[in-house]
Amino acid sequence: MSAEKVWPHHELGKKLNNWGRWGDDDEIGTLNFVTPQKRVEAAQLVRTGKAFDLGMAFDSDGPFKSGGFRNNPIHVMTLLPSDTAFSQDGLISADDMIVTGLQAATQWDGLAHAGYGGAFYNNVPAAAVNNFQGASRNSFHKAVDRLISRGVLLDIARLKGVDRLEDSYEITEADLLAAEERQGVRVESGDIVLLRTGSYQWFLEGDREHFLGNAPGPCLDTCNWLYEREVAALAMDNHSGEVWPSPVKGATIPFHQVVIRDMGLTLGEMFNFEELAADCEEDGVWETLFCAPGLKVTGSVGSPITPIALK
Amino acid sequence: MSAEKVWPHHELGKKLNNWGRWGDDDEIGTLNFVTPQKRVEAAQLVRTGKAFDLGMAFDSDGPFKSGGFRNNPIHVMTLLPSDTAFSQDGLISADDMIVTGLQAATQWDGLAHAGYGGAFYNNVPAAAVNNFQGASRNSFHKAVDRLISRGVLLDIARLKGVDRLEDSYEITEADLLAAEERQGVRVESGDIVLLRTGSYQWFLEGDREHFLGNAPGPCLDTCNWLYEREVAALAMDNHSGEVWPSPVKGATIPFHQVVIRDMGLTLGEMFNFEELAADCEEDGVWETLFCAPGLKVTGSVGSPITPIALK
Amino acid sequence: MSAEKVWPHHELGKKLNNWGRWGDDDEIGTLNFVTPQKRVEAAQLVRTGKAFDLGMAFDSDGPFKSGGFRNNPIHVMTLLPSDTAFSQDGLISADDMIVTGLQAATQWDGLAHAGYGGAFYNNVPAAAVNNFQGASRNSFHKAVDRLISRGVLLDIARLKGVDRLEDSYEITEADLLAAEERQGVRVESGDIVLLRTGSYQWFLEGDREHFLGNAPGPCLDTCNWLYEREVAALAMDNHSGEVWPSPVKGATIPFHQVVIRDMGLTLGEMFNFEELAADCEEDGVWETLFCAPGLKVTGSVGSPITPIALK
Amino acid sequence: MSAEKVWPHHELGKKLNNWGRWGDDDEIGTLNFVTPQKRVEAAQLVRTGKAFDLGMAFDSDGPFKSGGFRNNPIHVMTLLPSDTAFSQDGLISADDMIVTGLQAATQWDGLAHAGYGGAFYNNVPAAAVNNFQGASRNSFHKAVDRLISRGVLLDIARLKGVDRLEDSYEITEADLLAAEERQGVRVESGDIVLLRTGSYQWFLEGDREHFLGNAPGPCLDTCNWLYEREVAALAMDNHSGEVWPSPVKGATIPFHQVVIRDMGLTLGEMFNFEELAADCEEDGVWETLFCAPGLKVTGSVGSPITPIALK
Repeated sequence: MSAEKVWPHHELGKKLNNWGRWGDDDEIGTLNFVTPQKRVEAAQLVRTGKAFDLGMAFDSDGPFKSGGFRNNPIHVMTLLPSDTAFSQDGLISADDMIVTGLQAATQWDGLAHAGYGGAFYNNVPAAAVNNFQGASRNSFHKAVDRLISRGVLLDIARLKGVDRLEDSYEITEADLLAAEERQGVRVESGDIVLLRTGSYQWFLEGDREHFLGNAPGPCLDTCNWLYEREVAALAMDNHSGEVWPSPVKGATIPFHQVVIRDMGLTLGEMFNFEELAADCEEDGVWETLFCAPGLKVTGSVGSPITPIALK
Repeated sequence: MSAEKVWPHHELGKKLNNWGRWGDDDEIGTLNFVTPQKRVEAAQLVRTGKAFDLGMAFDSDGPFKSGGFRNNPIHVMTLLPSDTAFSQDGLISADDMIVTGLQAATQWDGLAHAGYGGAFYNNVPAAAVNNFQGASRNSFHKAVDRLISRGVLLDIARLKGVDRLEDSYEITEADLLAAEERQGVRVESGDIVLLRTGSYQWFLEGDREHFLGNAPGPCLDTCNWLYEREVAALAMDNHSGEVWPSPVKGATIPFHQVVIRDMGLTLGEMFNFEELAADCEEDGVWETLFCAPGLKVTGSVGSPITPIALK
Repeated sequence: MSAEKVWPHHELGKKLNNWGRWGDDDEIGTLNFVTPQKRVEAAQLVRTGKAFDLGMAFDSDGPFKSGGFRNNPIHVMTLLPSDTAFSQDGLISADDMIVTGLQAATQWDGLAHAGYGGAFYNNVPAAAVNNFQGASRNSFHKAVDRLISRGVLLDIARLKGVDRLEDSYEITEADLLAAEERQGVRVESGDIVLLRTGSYQWFLEGDREHFLGNAPGPCLDTCNWLYEREVAALAMDNHSGEVWPSPVKGATIPFHQVVIRDMGLTLGEMFNFEELAADCEEDGVWETLFCAPGLKVTGSVGSPITPIALK
Repeated sequence: MSAEKVWPHHELGKKLNNWGRWGDDDEIGTLNFVTPQKRVEAAQLVRTGKAFDLGMAFDSDGPFKSGGFRNNPIHVMTLLPSDTAFSQDGLISADDMIVTGLQAATQWDGLAHAGYGGAFYNNVPAAAVNNFQGASRNSFHKAVDRLISRGVLLDIARLKGVDRLEDSYEITEADLLAAEERQGVRVESGDIVLLRTGSYQWFLEGDREHFLGNAPGPCLDTCNWLYEREVAALAMDNHSGEVWPSPVKGATIPFHQVVIRDMGLTLGEMFNFEELAADCEEDGVWETLFCAPGLKVTGSVGSPITPIALK
């Protein structure tokens, strides 16, 4: 990194910086907005008891190509009925194991996932994330009990009157405000925002290449809104967690850098909002009790999840 | 299996059999008791917003010994800050992967985990669980959206006035009734029962050998109660999911056989109820919104989980 | 298996059966032909010191498709220079791990790999191969020190005057005899036969689908020759270890059944003979000191290898 | 690293430096001493055909503790007889996979394993070893065909008249010379030296803690001899590949740094020389055809091996 060059996302990050806001030892960032009171209010949103599974299946048909950076899950049986059928009482039993990228399929990106300037969220040095300890600071596992809150769907595809936003469409603050306006909902402190681009449809149609390619998503323009509204976490249905490729020349994931590193915002990727969005459009209710605690893997950067939204 | 021998648990299983109750294709058994209405009621239980993490950490300090049947999780970094620090804008990033038994640490045992007589729940043949497909029927992944419901803690250790029940203590129906009586709570259709023996303290104290050895737990005597009350799932704090070793000579896991195979009941093992139980004892509230959807691994026998209980 | 049906390969297997030939406890079969004297003779064959690497690289570009039955190797770093660069004396270090099918890429199929009639080689029951012990009998790891011997290349593609045999070409005993005749070489007791079909060229050209599809290879007609000549092991350059698909209707791998189960012959698959074959054609020397001990994995069905042939 | 501090091993490394000796692109270092002529001579050493397996078994009883830095191999079945027994012709088949540290059990440390001053052997920068490519330079897989050569056992334990050298005994050049003298053998260019300390006996006796603890091994004093004699590779029976702990205060593995990084010498660890050494003592022949090509894992730092020595 050239010391002199001033990057727009780093300038923005300075303005929206939450370091120290919840103490110098804080490791969960904006998930602090999920207070006990917030959980009580979120639970009240369950009115019909309908449950929506927002997760991708974890299996070898996952989104990634063979040999890629993030391996699709490999599921292996470690015990089969044939192993136990010789028991006196005819017991049969089965067990299994998995080899999987924690960022394969539907996932949370924790606060040790992205940074810059040699630091992760809350001034954690790069070297705190290493092979000996994993993420010795900002581990995702600190966050699990905060990932149940009010989940608000903002459907940008429907706002624009399309099935899915065009490739590399940059979602702006104006889009977010317009979606709130259209839907008659307002995102508040501690909410988990479920941001629909429609990009997941490529995966559902079996076009992994398109799904993993140029994608619509939020750009830097949305960061201020995320900060002001005190959003606790942001979940998306694209693969990249922000518009892809980056509109900032020379920067790969500038949005990640600002929201994860400076704001301390947990990001979700590859969520399936299709059924939920259709239901919300039908009944006009865009708020849910959202539940995606993830797995408490010590020292982890992220977590595979099967998120559930209740209405 | 000798065809002639009549096993007491198989006789009991015949009486409590739920095969066909929710159709011949049903793969989730008693989780059918978790209805939309049940979810609505469960959500109303969140009064203070306190969240209790009932999960064990997933790491190499897990309960199992090296080389054992179920390997402790191996967490490996697949991307480190040093891999990305050469980017133009100083991006640093990290990713990780895991190799883990799905039954390592806190977990659900699904309906393909245990059976007898060549069949799993709902007459699924042993061969339906194989290396090509995993659990081609009764896969745990079908159950994820039902694992949010009312969770009721029954604290048998406190009922008996002890920190933890003695090794191999057989929890009976009378114990369950007495616990309800003492606590002033009643288990109802669709509830997920959180059954505390205190055995988890061995793990907390670092005595893995004791934790994995002879353990208190429910015996066959409790099956009728589980059936009558229409319990949706049963979570325990021991390693074995039933009293260990089995009091039925020649049978290893007779309770598993009856409840999983005949009733279609999902079992949870190695839950940490210690903090929750202390809180319940203090405020006299034993019911929670219990949330443990697990991971949607295609063809899986079970799932690692980090369960959260909200009060 | 219908008890009545008489299969031609099973009939053939009866005739060529080696069970008990080296004792009832023998677990290495025809590798017994590799005697100390044989090793002495084989070593004398090294005349120029040229070394030929007959192995496929172990990496994510391996022959198998994502999600297939045998996963391509996943190679992961577990220690990187960035982990150690803070040492006082500037030490940097690296370590790595692998997740791989033992039958991914170039490999030996051991004597627990294929059988029929409920038995593997030397009357080992099917249940001796299980999840608790792996291959508790006939484990490949017993064979490692026998896999250095005289290796004789028989080039059937060049015999037929083609770059590679056509798909599903059935190599016969007559072909083997003609190849010996053309090359002026004779296969003898304890030899490891390197059988070239040219099929490996598909892999070298990047056409994995063709490489894994219909393939030339030996058919049942060659079994008698393998038996009479006391071949110790047979290595091939195709993916299937025999002609694919099987010419015996209703049988998938009849050649494997006879040679592995009845004769006790270790099979090698996906060897790269291209360079070696060109050299042999040039100098007219078809015999080598062949060296492919494999890995001593306890209870294993096979082993990944990087075979070396010295001339 | 303090730029000013002069470390004795780095000074020594400068003197024994082989960078550029075999070209700026060389990635195999002293294995270049294994010439075709050397292989021819080595093969002539096979006189009785006796084969000695110098490898440790790869399984869950490996040397490392649960949760340690290098995981013991996890061997899992991926196909069992029960999966295939329904075939028309009664075929049964089995397959397996492994999850293993490449440095678990008997192994080669390649030239990307250790360095200092930001560089590995032949001026390869630290960043050439990363998560994207593994070891993009100096990968072990380049070396496989050179790991068959004359193997000469030097038995320092017997030289000293003990079963095993005492913990942390520093093997010196004088010891090496005395061993040659006693044995009547002389190490020459291209030899692979098999250096016996007796430390492996701790592992054979089941005392993993002692085996992995303070260990006898070569110290810096031996480097000059290794350089002068043009040793191609050095294999040892201890866990650490040099005396442990390091006698150089502030340096963890100074011997590794000099021989791997400056000389380009491949190191072997955890070899079992017990049987071979007894045989050599008996017949007075200390030279063998040594064969340990390892696995050609692309971008690897090392390789698991089952080395074979033929006499």
